[in-house]
Amino acid sequence: MASTLLRNSINGLINLPRKSPFSGHRNLTANSQQNPLPSTEFNFAEYRATKVNQINKALDEAVVPSQNTPPILHEAMRYTLQAGGKRFAPTLCIASCELVGGNESLAMPMACALEMMVASAVILDDLPCTDNDDLRRGKPANHKVFGEGISVLASQALSFLAIEHFETKTKGEISSDRLVRAVVELCSALGSKGAVAGQVADINSEGKEVSLSELEFIHRNKTGKIVETSVVCGVLVGGGNDVEIEMIRKYGKCMGLAYQVWDDILDETGNTEELGKKAGKDLVRNKATYPKLMGVDESKKYARELVVEAKEELSYFDSTMAAPLYHIANFVVSRSH
Amino acid sequence: MASTLLRNSINGLINLPRKSPFSGHRNLTANSQQNPLPSTEFNFAEYRATKVNQINKALDEAVVPSQNTPPILHEAMRYTLQAGGKRFAPTLCIASCELVGGNESLAMPMACALEMMVASAVILDDLPCTDNDDLRRGKPANHKVFGEGISVLASQALSFLAIEHFETKTKGEISSDRLVRAVVELCSALGSKGAVAGQVADINSEGKEVSLSELEFIHRNKTGKIVETSVVCGVLVGGGNDVEIEMIRKYGKCMGLAYQVWDDILDETGNTEELGKKAGKDLVRNKATYPKLMGVDESKKYARELVVEAKEELSYFDSTMAAPLYHIANFVVSRSH
Repeated sequence: MASTLLRNSINGLINLPRKSPFSGHRNLTANSQQNPLPSTEFNFAEYRATKVNQINKALDEAVVPSQNTPPILHEAMRYTLQAGGKRFAPTLCIASCELVGGNESLAMPMACALEMMVASAVILDDLPCTDNDDLRRGKPANHKVFGEGISVLASQALSFLAIEHFETKTKGEISSDRLVRAVVELCSALGSKGAVAGQVADINSEGKEVSLSELEFIHRNKTGKIVETSVVCGVLVGGGNDVEIEMIRKYGKCMGLAYQVWDDILDETGNTEELGKKAGKDLVRNKATYPKLMGVDESKKYARELVVEAKEELSYFDSTMAAPLYHIANFVVSRSH
Repeated sequence: MASTLLRNSINGLINLPRKSPFSGHRNLTANSQQNPLPSTEFNFAEYRATKVNQINKALDEAVVPSQNTPPILHEAMRYTLQAGGKRFAPTLCIASCELVGGNESLAMPMACALEMMVASAVILDDLPCTDNDDLRRGKPANHKVFGEGISVLASQALSFLAIEHFETKTKGEISSDRLVRAVVELCSALGSKGAVAGQVADINSEGKEVSLSELEFIHRNKTGKIVETSVVCGVLVGGGNDVEIEMIRKYGKCMGLAYQVWDDILDETGNTEELGKKAGKDLVRNKATYPKLMGVDESKKYARELVVEAKEELSYFDSTMAAPLYHIANFVVSRSH
């Protein structure tokens, strides 16, 4: 419903009915709306593997020793960044850049910046004073290896490097106006009105009765905002216009929440080895989760509905160019870890 | 000596002898070089009080409640930001902007951003896992009031807000190119090659034998880089050219080190009430300090030499416009807290 409202208002903005093939929209065709995407024509596993490989390579090159950086700080920054993970945010960023005609190399500095921000948040997330997790992606958490003081500073350093890296490597490739806009988008999504707000609400909710709307606030912000900003920044660096940015923002909002709802489900139904972190930990800590508030089956249904809603936004774009984002959406609610 | 070398190379760059009144440099006059600044013609106390007042007002308006921000996060962010302090970094930024013809309001968003970065670093600095300080500016440290988890996140939120605030409020006032350059300067100064590097080296040095060069590394980075970037960013937003930026960078480097050497002296000779933090704490923790390595008198002499060196850089500029920076330099090595 909300999706329809947004779409109507966007159509109002560009002053054309949704199904017109003459809307002036970059890749809009009547056909792509009727039949969003042929899922068989695209090898998602191969796409994902290639992107993850390229992202890992770029991250390896982005955090190099410097004469002025104490080796332990450099190691602590690389430790969490190189600990693997799904590279979900950077993959979304690249796919969104490609959606509007940009290429992988144009998106890569922002993709790396996003993963640095994820690593930065992950380090703080695992600290004894926040989520108190000993394991992350099957390895000891950053503070277990380097101590809390170095970990906190490594997290801070990763945030600064993220922005520096993006601006330095993208300068000259896109307009400075777009560069500025992307950094504002990123900082706004991650700060006191976004990811940090969600993390604080999460800490405050522990051991308390939490309503569904409070849980949604936590999820939409804590993880949701990084997903949203990943796709928005991808379209921004790729040259997308304001209408495209708002469509992809909606896709990102739905995907961010779906991702976290599915994580809640996995925490209850997955196993520790596969997850790389302790399964059932949320239950042990009496944390509010979607399965706890609405049951496992209803949570799965809700996550899948969100993914359907996300994919609807893609129907405005060329189906071939939107294929990666379409398949990433499906992946979110089918993954086992 | 180094200052002379740099000046010669800069004069080489602009291809004119240092004393030529026709150098084409913005405010260069032969007179200003002979007799840097008449200290009696400028009311520094009034200048400083006015700037601090304006900065406090701007900071108050920069961190306002938002529907999406949990109240405790908002309070924790404001708590350290509003706890007073010398507003040294933002005053330097405004004075540097004015040095090259910019005005206070043009510099204010960057000035606020710098103070947010200072507050962000201060929160992390005081944590049990880093410096473990209970008092800051005469008040309980942030984590003593809000708990470590919220403090760490408030620190992170302040960093993001700093960049968002600067970019949002300065956009349209200066070119996006300069905006990008200032943010890169800021992030580079504060990150793994700057302030965080110094903080890590400081943590690693505790309880160990520290050489003078290691102590200088800590000071030049931990506090020094924020001073350096404050003046560089001030000149950048004020419209300064590359020659002016490098001169002011040298001023900032000297001032940053002088500031911290003087802090070491105050830690040994000041009293707790006046300092707003426990005096003699560095000695109790067996931390390396300048007075410990070279004695109080030699440390004072060194700090004053650095300030002389800093002021030499100002002789290139119009003496009236450079007056605030000249007096700030004197203030650094005459303050009692």
